[in-house]
Amino acid sequence: MDKLDLNKIESPADIRKMDTAELKEVADGLRRTLIEKLSSHGGHCGPNLGMVEAIIALHYVFDTPKDKIVFDVSHQTYPHKMITGRIRAFTDPKHYDDVTGYTSPSESEYDLFSLGHTSSAIALASGLAKARDLTGGKENVVAVIGDGSLSGGVAFEGLDYGATLGTNFIVVVNDNDMSIAENHGGIYENLRLLRNTNGTAGENLFRTFGYDYIYVQYGNDIESLISAFRSVKNSDHPVVVHINTMKGMGLPVAESHKEQFHYTAPFDPATGAPLSGTPAGVDTDTYADIFAKDFLEKIKDNPGLVAITAGTPGVIGFGPDRRAEAGKQFVDVGIAEQQAVAMASGLAKGGATPVVGLASTFLQRAFDQFSQDIALNHQPATFLVFYGSMFGMNDETHLGFFDLSLLSNIPDLLVLTPSCKEEFVAMLHWSENQRKTPAVIRIPGGNVLTNPDINIPEDYSEAGYETVRAGSRVALIGVGGFLPIVTQAADILASAGVDATVINPRQVSHLDKSTLDSLLGYDVIITAEDGILDGGYGQKVASYFGNASVKVINLGLPKEFLNRYNAGELQRRCGMTPEQIAATALGNIRK
Amino acid sequence: MDKLDLNKIESPADIRKMDTAELKEVADGLRRTLIEKLSSHGGHCGPNLGMVEAIIALHYVFDTPKDKIVFDVSHQTYPHKMITGRIRAFTDPKHYDDVTGYTSPSESEYDLFSLGHTSSAIALASGLAKARDLTGGKENVVAVIGDGSLSGGVAFEGLDYGATLGTNFIVVVNDNDMSIAENHGGIYENLRLLRNTNGTAGENLFRTFGYDYIYVQYGNDIESLISAFRSVKNSDHPVVVHINTMKGMGLPVAESHKEQFHYTAPFDPATGAPLSGTPAGVDTDTYADIFAKDFLEKIKDNPGLVAITAGTPGVIGFGPDRRAEAGKQFVDVGIAEQQAVAMASGLAKGGATPVVGLASTFLQRAFDQFSQDIALNHQPATFLVFYGSMFGMNDETHLGFFDLSLLSNIPDLLVLTPSCKEEFVAMLHWSENQRKTPAVIRIPGGNVLTNPDINIPEDYSEAGYETVRAGSRVALIGVGGFLPIVTQAADILASAGVDATVINPRQVSHLDKSTLDSLLGYDVIITAEDGILDGGYGQKVASYFGNASVKVINLGLPKEFLNRYNAGELQRRCGMTPEQIAATALGNIRK
Repeated sequence: MDKLDLNKIESPADIRKMDTAELKEVADGLRRTLIEKLSSHGGHCGPNLGMVEAIIALHYVFDTPKDKIVFDVSHQTYPHKMITGRIRAFTDPKHYDDVTGYTSPSESEYDLFSLGHTSSAIALASGLAKARDLTGGKENVVAVIGDGSLSGGVAFEGLDYGATLGTNFIVVVNDNDMSIAENHGGIYENLRLLRNTNGTAGENLFRTFGYDYIYVQYGNDIESLISAFRSVKNSDHPVVVHINTMKGMGLPVAESHKEQFHYTAPFDPATGAPLSGTPAGVDTDTYADIFAKDFLEKIKDNPGLVAITAGTPGVIGFGPDRRAEAGKQFVDVGIAEQQAVAMASGLAKGGATPVVGLASTFLQRAFDQFSQDIALNHQPATFLVFYGSMFGMNDETHLGFFDLSLLSNIPDLLVLTPSCKEEFVAMLHWSENQRKTPAVIRIPGGNVLTNPDINIPEDYSEAGYETVRAGSRVALIGVGGFLPIVTQAADILASAGVDATVINPRQVSHLDKSTLDSLLGYDVIITAEDGILDGGYGQKVASYFGNASVKVINLGLPKEFLNRYNAGELQRRCGMTPEQIAATALGNIRK
Repeated sequence: MDKLDLNKIESPADIRKMDTAELKEVADGLRRTLIEKLSSHGGHCGPNLGMVEAIIALHYVFDTPKDKIVFDVSHQTYPHKMITGRIRAFTDPKHYDDVTGYTSPSESEYDLFSLGHTSSAIALASGLAKARDLTGGKENVVAVIGDGSLSGGVAFEGLDYGATLGTNFIVVVNDNDMSIAENHGGIYENLRLLRNTNGTAGENLFRTFGYDYIYVQYGNDIESLISAFRSVKNSDHPVVVHINTMKGMGLPVAESHKEQFHYTAPFDPATGAPLSGTPAGVDTDTYADIFAKDFLEKIKDNPGLVAITAGTPGVIGFGPDRRAEAGKQFVDVGIAEQQAVAMASGLAKGGATPVVGLASTFLQRAFDQFSQDIALNHQPATFLVFYGSMFGMNDETHLGFFDLSLLSNIPDLLVLTPSCKEEFVAMLHWSENQRKTPAVIRIPGGNVLTNPDINIPEDYSEAGYETVRAGSRVALIGVGGFLPIVTQAADILASAGVDATVINPRQVSHLDKSTLDSLLGYDVIITAEDGILDGGYGQKVASYFGNASVKVINLGLPKEFLNRYNAGELQRRCGMTPEQIAATALGNIRK
């Protein structure tokens, strides 16, 4: 089957007319097309290649969109998009960016939710099933979830509740024996046992949760899958279909390097070599790399120092080699942010030195643990926040600019905002060696910034703001990565004859009232932060000066779920380029 | 054994010298003392009465505080406090309030964490165990968790990770076949099976997670417990000890009315009758009661209307009778806030009308679901927040004044703040009948407020602020329950010759710029909100007016983990009495 034929698939109805041989041709065609797009465009590789047959079989057996399928995390839905009216976004390079990388209800009625955080599909589907039962519907409700995602708390909560529905509720567990990296958790031994016994083992996680259970040994065989899905279609009770698939199926480098090819930038499909850039864990100059190298140096002298990731070791610079080198001092808890944060409290209480690395967008899973287990308990754990910035991930499901507002309003939690790599390392070293306070270090976005002249205080929990440049009338406070940007604005102002004060607040969790009070006679204070304005740093400064005469102008991001935005355009929209900041300052100087 | 003897128990060392008969006497004495204190003072009743023997046995077998015991939720630790140096806080009414109702490291080295939210103990203990393994310790680490708490996501995450430790890690599952109300979830069938088979069933939840397992049929028999704990002491691998206890043991009314006696106000120990007030589900005039009665009226005509609780039906006014009346239209998902919120998204997507009721302090468990599953997906679910207020729960672990700051900074989530019961009902009815937006209704704290004259708009998603009283120079914006308080302040100002404008913002998630702009010529705007200032409503107003000449003064709570505070004193400390607000206004009028 060539591309021309694939382009004729307009909806699953076209699939349902085919015989098995034709379905296999479709699978081959989708896979070839996927490899072509992925290798030139990048994207989630292994998850999609492994799910080609299962997605075809699901749409073949179930009467979508009347029957409802919720795909967990939904980064495996490229084949689903290809057979639900969006094939040209995969066959035609001009249309590659017509679709997002996740299910999106604005694209198709076959996409039920905008979904990019893992582990929620069972809970969402349980709501669909309950709505059906209340309103007299008859459709099948199917949740599709990967083995890696099962370790997230809301997946267990959903599995636990779903079993009580007592009606049609089908959970397809796509088990490829991998998370992004290898799995971690006790349940994975049980999944292994089930795979090794062709699903017959007496100890069965899903049965203990109350599900009927069937196992599909060849999860990339369309006939096996169709047979299994047919056997559960219209089931009158909850059932798990456990399918054993191959992550990266059909692309040898992706089959043999599953972690590297979970998500990839453009690559040579023959060798797997990236067309540009370097994969995680290779010596580069990213903040993650700086952290990982620093960490591996220090563990030699500090047996209690331990790095923790919640299923995303690459985010914090730990590829397989570095994980091996760190040994017991590197912990991957699986996709389980709550566990990572609460465990850090226990580690600190027990005298160890935990450093937890999280992607900004995922840390919100653990808000309660930050508040209760860490901050309320004053445990001196260190948290590194990666990709927290307008210059980070830009899918609406993966935004990284809500974190400052979220964390800085928790009592007794120090939220540090380094402005360059030297300050990041100084804060990291300080935090690892103190027992006074939990500390979040929110790493700047974009390219690594350097400033060898940055002032390093003795104690970041007591240090006030740093006045980087002393001026008058105009004060520019630049949070984190916006310090160099407001400094550029100050340069522009200087050339206009205005000597602006430039301040590095260093942290956004409490106000340095002494430094702020020194600005009372100013005309205008401008704050610039790499996060939403609502609930953020600038508004605290504005409130502090609410009954003073100095003007306060807060620059930051709007409270919006932006989607695939351009960071440069966003910065301009928010008035946050150096030129715009300088112009705003000039416009607010008293005449 | 009489009280005098109990008072001689200064530490577990005193217990460890005793023989079985003496231990049983201690248990009887502790239980009698507990019943005496609970009936006159109130507190968590059933959980403590059921754990007397297990706590004695734990301290008898394990070498606390060197061996470490983490009690989940810790509301069952009264007996633990009694035998770890705090007996007089139970035997002597003058000292009843010397201890909190939860473990508290500031009270005792036997208390490892300040802990009041459920389900985190296994995760916390896993950190203690890992710290021990990294630093060469040999102590036992024990997590004690109830069956009800097992349904929380972080409990599963902890159980999953803990199994991988490969070293000493003991999880005691205190199974009394009850949550606060009855349990809900598939795992509870497995627990029942294990109880019914004396722990021998082949399907075993804990074994599928990777634990060794032993069962104690008589969880209130000290000898059985000692034998079981001895058998796992110094275990070199993770093990679950599943003990079958009786909630409310030894107090007949608590044994027979487990839900009512989970937590009680003072009561007559013979009859169980409350000494004052009325238990949940009885016809009273609380917001919960208003909701429950309204809901039960409406379900008759609306099969898709469904109320959801996460293990706390009493919080939303649903005692056993009302739950029975609501039938399938009432869902308890167990202690699983993430499930409750994500499921509501699925329900709304499926065309049903979900109303989720949560206690303020627990909703933070589901921040990510509010953001991703609800707001990003624009699902028109309704959320009722109870006990969100400085006039709510006042333990440091259960504070209800972080919610406004937390939720109001999520894009596309309407956060309504009714000021009285009439406005609450109007908002509820509006939200149940609209499909435009998810809506949180944050119910005021304290006594039920009434205002039959409140203005009810057609559409709360489009309604602006209500100017309750038109004045000049001074504007008072009272959020929710502070509307009547600022109105009283306006009365005081009127008597001083100042006509203040009084505004009801109705919601705190977006600014009504038109109304705010009408205040530009004022001298001062005072905002008053029943939540922390940081990240809250007032700071948004202050930022909005940052470069205007009108003064803005924000009144609200400090960003602190307050503990067992007095609400009236806190209100005064924050300058939020009517008299203080009026004085602040007068002091900021331009001369």
